[in-house]
Amino acid sequence: MADIAAELSGIVGAEYLLAGDAIGEDYAHDEALSSEPVKPAFVARPGNAQQVAQLLKAASELGVPVTARGSGSGMSGAARPRENGLLISFERMSAILEIDTENHVAVVQPGVSLEDLDAELAKHGLVYPVYPGELSASVGGNVGTNAGGMRAIKYGVTRNNVLGLEAALPTGELIRTGGKFVKTSTGYDLTQLIIGSEGTLALATEAILKVQPRMPHQGTVLAPFVDLDEVARAVPKVVSSGVGPLILEYIDGLTMGAITYRAQLQLGVPDEVREKSHAYLVVQLESRSADRLEEDVAEVGELLAGLGAMDVYVLDGSAANKLIDAREKAFWAAKEAGADDIIDTVIPRASLPQFMERVRAIAQENNTFVIGCGHAGDGNVHLAVLQKDHEVRDRVLHDLFEAGINLGGAISGEHGIGRKHTERFLALTDPAKVDLMRRIKTAFDPAGILNPGVLFD
Amino acid sequence: MADIAAELSGIVGAEYLLAGDAIGEDYAHDEALSSEPVKPAFVARPGNAQQVAQLLKAASELGVPVTARGSGSGMSGAARPRENGLLISFERMSAILEIDTENHVAVVQPGVSLEDLDAELAKHGLVYPVYPGELSASVGGNVGTNAGGMRAIKYGVTRNNVLGLEAALPTGELIRTGGKFVKTSTGYDLTQLIIGSEGTLALATEAILKVQPRMPHQGTVLAPFVDLDEVARAVPKVVSSGVGPLILEYIDGLTMGAITYRAQLQLGVPDEVREKSHAYLVVQLESRSADRLEEDVAEVGELLAGLGAMDVYVLDGSAANKLIDAREKAFWAAKEAGADDIIDTVIPRASLPQFMERVRAIAQENNTFVIGCGHAGDGNVHLAVLQKDHEVRDRVLHDLFEAGINLGGAISGEHGIGRKHTERFLALTDPAKVDLMRRIKTAFDPAGILNPGVLFD
Ligand SMILES: Cc1cc2nc3c(=O)[nH]c(=O)nc-3n(C[C@H](O)[C@H](O)[C@H](O)COP(=O)(O)OP(=O)(O)OC[C@H]3O[C@@H](n4cnc5c(N)ncnc54)[C@H](O)[C@@H]3O)c2cc1C
Ligand SMILES: Cc1cc2nc3c(=O)[nH]c(=O)nc-3n(C[C@H](O)[C@H](O)[C@H](O)COP(=O)(O)OP(=O)(O)OC[C@H]3O[C@@H](n4cnc5c(N)ncnc54)[C@H](O)[C@@H]3O)c2cc1C
Repeated sequence: MADIAAELSGIVGAEYLLAGDAIGEDYAHDEALSSEPVKPAFVARPGNAQQVAQLLKAASELGVPVTARGSGSGMSGAARPRENGLLISFERMSAILEIDTENHVAVVQPGVSLEDLDAELAKHGLVYPVYPGELSASVGGNVGTNAGGMRAIKYGVTRNNVLGLEAALPTGELIRTGGKFVKTSTGYDLTQLIIGSEGTLALATEAILKVQPRMPHQGTVLAPFVDLDEVARAVPKVVSSGVGPLILEYIDGLTMGAITYRAQLQLGVPDEVREKSHAYLVVQLESRSADRLEEDVAEVGELLAGLGAMDVYVLDGSAANKLIDAREKAFWAAKEAGADDIIDTVIPRASLPQFMERVRAIAQENNTFVIGCGHAGDGNVHLAVLQKDHEVRDRVLHDLFEAGINLGGAISGEHGIGRKHTERFLALTDPAKVDLMRRIKTAFDPAGILNPGVLFD
Repeated sequence: MADIAAELSGIVGAEYLLAGDAIGEDYAHDEALSSEPVKPAFVARPGNAQQVAQLLKAASELGVPVTARGSGSGMSGAARPRENGLLISFERMSAILEIDTENHVAVVQPGVSLEDLDAELAKHGLVYPVYPGELSASVGGNVGTNAGGMRAIKYGVTRNNVLGLEAALPTGELIRTGGKFVKTSTGYDLTQLIIGSEGTLALATEAILKVQPRMPHQGTVLAPFVDLDEVARAVPKVVSSGVGPLILEYIDGLTMGAITYRAQLQLGVPDEVREKSHAYLVVQLESRSADRLEEDVAEVGELLAGLGAMDVYVLDGSAANKLIDAREKAFWAAKEAGADDIIDTVIPRASLPQFMERVRAIAQENNTFVIGCGHAGDGNVHLAVLQKDHEVRDRVLHDLFEAGINLGGAISGEHGIGRKHTERFLALTDPAKVDLMRRIKTAFDPAGILNPGVLFD
């Protein structure tokens, strides 16, 4: 152990290597619920890409498992370290290296938070449009999980907005993939392969992000419906209309109660509507022109009214921001309410009613409480599962995932598999695909040091 | 050979296996210039996915090289078969299996042409927005090359519009990747890895395509500039404006002359402007409202006038269609003019002036004629190279690619590497990346049967 410490601190410098009791509690976990914190043997805080590559090379030689950590806001335990392992924290590599207004890209280090990036881009009238609910999250972590968020219906997810990477390979090389351009057909797309690989293939040491003009005007429509089936039927019509919504979010009645209560938010929905509504649709639009926005908001309002909305509320800017903010914090509301797990199954959006029927049945069979909200436009359903019994909960999660897969969906839309769901992922995935992924893993990481226990056992 | 024939015809049926003289000339080439046609030993025309998987399994066991062919419109020789090999032609697998208006996806077999797909989607008011210049191209071929085209500035390329695949692995399994949803974080993204791999990793037997509402209104602005530097300076401003152009294309003066002459097209540009203009910018906009389109067209016109355009022409629908069509056929004009090669280097779009300066220098040093046009918004420069001497031409291509790479670009934006550029790709790419790609190749294709000679030697 002392030898390993010496080798690692030789790379990053003694002040940037922590071991034993010097390692703070924060490094022991991410935001996955019902997961025991695990302190790693070492935490290294590299200052540049070369150090990251050297750390990986040393770890490969020494057989030390390595977990990368951005901001630790992940939901699947993918940044939870191994007891005998090395945690590489990107906190010191958080610079915005360049904002290039001609090519419309930002070049950043992986540790930069979305919040800091957004503040800087705003000065240039630009936006990086990936907004997962937690803006303390880092770009490197977003690359790890292929983070999504509410605006994915318009702008796509991390995968659609990262144009290139610098990445350290477990074999010790630094490579560059992609570039300041939106497309290339020059060999395999390593950028895309690394994105969403949850720190199991390579570690991003720099990212080239596609940025967009920042739209000055936003408008928000809130529509209560009798139930989620009606919401699910309305969603394709909003998409077909061509208004190009920025956000298309559903919130079930209970979740709406919990998040508005927590935020002390009055939305002006009368009691009699609130009592009868079991599902809300939130549509946010943006535009570069105030007039067009007003037209579009009116159009969406009429459309929803014709599609069975019990009422339609155009929220003013401040109420809208508060609602979106409260929705982003739904996780904290669920946690406070005692949620034992959060999942984010993705299904074809038109299958939402069938999926929710299965969800209700599974919940009932297992005496488990399940509530939620989700990115309705993406078919990405976030469910809070309240069930203290570990075994029952495991069964519920398995059945929920299976129900999603049977409808043509997948286990996770944006949170990832992590340590939490690896076992279920392996049980529910075509073995031919798992084998192929294992071979790809070995192609990157022959010594198997990167995040063992995530995706594979 | 007879044994192999028996085995292959046992899979697809005797009438769907061709050998020897029964193999037509068409199967011997794609549209890559200066490439000798090569007749394969066998052509199989499978009727379903299982047959494709069985063909690959047999080929792996027998050590027979396999090349997939869609419509053979590729520009890089990636569908050019091996003399002793098997060509799998997807011509019989060309069905549109489903147009799903709720999830906004189309599910198709790989052999379907973009033209047929477009006609069918139009009936539903939908569009698959990837429009490479040749609509006889197949979706499978588009997956192979990660095809782009003029609308990539708004909608992205094939990679951004394919949500899932069914694919046959060289090891004989059929797998499904992705699904009818826009995002997932559930293991490695095999969809993205297969797209752009030029038939070297797996063969697509089905594709789930993201489709969009079809916009009813389009408007086109043509602006002559003194030179390409001015065009390159104007492009980021159009992007920043937020109008969201559908097409942002540059055409150099000589190419404009050639394509309008070939199409017998009068654009109303007066002689004195034409004489002084060395580069044109074409901006196409679309909208769901005629009024908004008119406003946007006017805005772009004013913007370009302020950015140094010598004049601004708003083309009527018919002239616009003819110009876009003529641009798409630029390849044929170049071929007729005796072009010996076409390349499509991609660079950061703001580096266009520096790149073109290098292009001019390389052309001059080597006594070679180089003209072009390109997807200015994407930094994707299509150059026709006229140089009969094989060795000089090789050097010119090498130098052009190197110039692009030195500016942070890549060899190909959308045509791919194919058999034509594999040698240069290997010479110009970081060996650590090539080695990694080779290991990925082996993870998919341990017997090395899929398109040997493409990407790797
Ligand atoms: C309240 C709340 C709301 C949320 N809402 C959303 C949401 O709407 N959408 C969504 O997608 N997520 C959401 N999340 C989850 C979380 O914010 C995302 O998963 C985010 O991408 C994690 O970023 P991070 O920096 O915290 O990464 P971490 O948790 O530190 O790490 C995540 C993964 O990335 C890997 N990683 C870290 N750095 C790198 C690197 N440089 N290179 C390669 N891999 C790396 C880690 O090893 C791990 O596998 C939410 C979380 C919270 C707490
Ligand atoms: C006039 C003209 C204009 C063009 N304009 C453009 C343009 O603007 N943008 C652009 O990107 N391209 C353009 N092209 C090039 C060409 O149309 C594209 O490369 C297209 O993707 C090729 O499709 P195809 O069906 O003809 O494929 P093919 O040429 O038959 O094959 C292309 C590659 O795909 C592989 N492949 C075929 N089927 C499958 C499958 N089922 N699974 C996996 N791999 C498969 C092949 O092995 C090969 O590697 C143009 C070509 C012409 C002739």
